[in-house]
Formats: sequence, structure tokens, C-alpha cells
Amino acid sequence: MRVIVIGAAGDIGGIVCETLGGQHDIIKAGRTTGDIQVDISDLGAVRDFYRDIGAFDAVVSCAGDVAFEPLSNFTQESFMHGLRQKVMGQVNLVLAGRDVIAEGGSFTLTSGVLDRDPVPMGTGAATANGALAGFVKSAALEMSRGVRVNVVSPGLLKTSERRYGAWFPGHKPVLSEDVGRAYRKSVEGALTGQLIIVA
Amino acid sequence: MRVIVIGAAGDIGGIVCETLGGQHDIIKAGRTTGDIQVDISDLGAVRDFYRDIGAFDAVVSCAGDVAFEPLSNFTQESFMHGLRQKVMGQVNLVLAGRDVIAEGGSFTLTSGVLDRDPVPMGTGAATANGALAGFVKSAALEMSRGVRVNVVSPGLLKTSERRYGAWFPGHKPVLSEDVGRAYRKSVEGALTGQLIIVA
Repeated sequence: MRVIVIGAAGDIGGIVCETLGGQHDIIKAGRTTGDIQVDISDLGAVRDFYRDIGAFDAVVSCAGDVAFEPLSNFTQESFMHGLRQKVMGQVNLVLAGRDVIAEGGSFTLTSGVLDRDPVPMGTGAATANGALAGFVKSAALEMSRGVRVNVVSPGLLKTSERRYGAWFPGHKPVLSEDVGRAYRKSVEGALTGQLIIVA
Repeated sequence: MRVIVIGAAGDIGGIVCETLGGQHDIIKAGRTTGDIQVDISDLGAVRDFYRDIGAFDAVVSCAGDVAFEPLSNFTQESFMHGLRQKVMGQVNLVLAGRDVIAEGGSFTLTSGVLDRDPVPMGTGAATANGALAGFVKSAALEMSRGVRVNVVSPGLLKTSERRYGAWFPGHKPVLSEDVGRAYRKSVEGALTGQLIIVA
């Protein structure tokens, strides 16, 4: 399969590329890194991006910024940033791609742990994650040609624990191989409309 | 208690006003109706709104537009409309109100059935509903002075069935008294960070 990985340079993107790279042809994309650049928060830019790439079978998105700050510090702008980048950006990949992806293709988005196991400062992320779960469950009803859409919700990565662990007291870190399995399940399996939790 | 009801003129707002009106002092608000007007999608306008009202003990929001259309018709603009109105708008009520609401006060937001029981054309609503569930679960961790925040997720209202039932085949309509009970539970009870489902 020809698989587009958005946010390929990130921790999760790296796991996805390593997991799927053996069997599939990977196109690495990112806002400023990768083989091709795209700002997914702009639907028009996403359409152009797909046109440039040509035929593809799967999209895995590991992209999406959110502000991480105390609730008392959130402004409308910093809160909207997450809705625009992590939610609308990943939704744009589906809206622009659903008619051009190969028959039986799949979209795999990424949320995270903070809507199911919240921590202080994570309300922007929790909101975006919840949105993505609602999105895939509903969007799956309206995909055609056997196209599927899921979201992977990984816990705190073992490999990210040293950098972020202090904000996630008591969270059990997840192994890279289990994260990779979740994306493989979505891309190569038959699931659709599912929230795939890596705990 | 002094209770602000946003979207008081709507079907759900009417139930809330009727349920809580006997015991509490209700201030009815809306974008264009009610005792006071406010555009909740503007955080500054919400701050001014609270300043004009003075002391209050609870906010119940039954407001929030989303586009209802086939997934293939959604544009970035129509999709963002729901994120801005139904998500950011209701979030703004909490961001602006958390420091000025009375000690032990509560915010009760409204989502809906479509993220847990989706139907075609409902992806904008499903996304917004999921976002609100994630929001309250996380925001509750950072409320101070005993202030609480919940979201009520009502199914298709029995009273709305004639207008909207065709889009919700097989959905069991919910009774107004059960919807009222959910809001009463949130406002007068002790729950926080909860998704209160009316099924």
C-alpha cells in the first residue's frame, strides 16, 4: 500500500513509519519536515497536497498541536488553536481525501489519553481528543467505496516519559510496539468508526 | 439560586426554565432572545455579560449551533461553525465565568446524542459533542472554590420528534421530565466532570 504519514517526524509518526515501512511504501509529510510539506489546517492546501501525491491507499495522521496550559490561562485564541489544528486539521485530511483515496482505503487519526485520563493543563487536548472520537464514529457512517476512518488514542509514550512524565503522575507509559500495533490494526485491518485505545 | 440559562428560548432551554423555575431565580439569555442577549462565541462579550448580570450561582447552557449536512457537503467553514459555536461558545461560558461565579456554583453544558449514537449528516454535531465531554472531564480538575462543570447529553426529545424524527430512525425519544431531571442533577447535585446521559 501507498501510505501517507502526516507528522512523520514526531515521536508517534516515527513509530508509525518504522512499523509500516517494511511492508508499505511510506510518504512522509509534515508542516515543515518530511518529503512533502502541508498545512493541514487549510482544507485547500490539503486538496492540493493530495493532488500532488497522486494515488494513495491510506493516510495516517500523527499531527495536531494543542496549547498545554492551566485552564485559567486559556484565551479564546489558545483554545481555538487546538480546535483548528488538532481537530479541523485532521478532519480536513478526511474531507479532502475521502473521494480521492483508493477503494477500501483508510484514514487513521491520532487523539491521546487526556480525554479519558485527564491531567491539569490538558483541557485543550482533552477537548480535541473527545472531538476526534465523535468525528470518526459519525464520519464512518458516510464513507463510500469501503473507505474506513479510525482514531488511535495512545497513552503517554514510554519514549516520551522523560520529557513529559512529570505532568502525567501515575500514568502507565505505553510501549512503542503497542502503539505501532494500533496503527497497523487500523491501516491493515477492517475496523471503521473506532476509537483504538493504546493503554 | 440565581441561575443563568443560555438558549432559554429553545426546546431544551424551555424544559430547563420550567424545571428549575419553581425553586430558583432564572435569568433567560440568548443570542437574540431572552432578558439579556449575548454572543457566546466571543469571550469578551461573555465577560461583559457576566459583569452586567452581577452575582450568580449557576449557568446552564442549552446553546450552540452546528451545521447538519452530508459529510460530502461539509466545508472547512461549515465544520468550524460548530467548533466555534457549540464548543468554543460553551467553553467561553466556563473560561469567563469560573472566577466570578459564586463559591460552589456550577456550569452545565449541553451536548447531544450524536457522538454516542450517530446518524448521517450529524458529523458536525458528533464532533462538537465529543469535544464537550472531553472538556468537562478535564476542566473539572482545575475548578476552584468548589465550582463544578458537567455536560448533559440528551437523546432526541419526544417533543422534537415530529420535526426531527425522520433523521433519527429507531432512536427512542426522551421525555422532557427526564431531560429536566438531568439538568437538576447537575445544578443542585454534587457531580462534577461528568457526562450526564439522558437516554
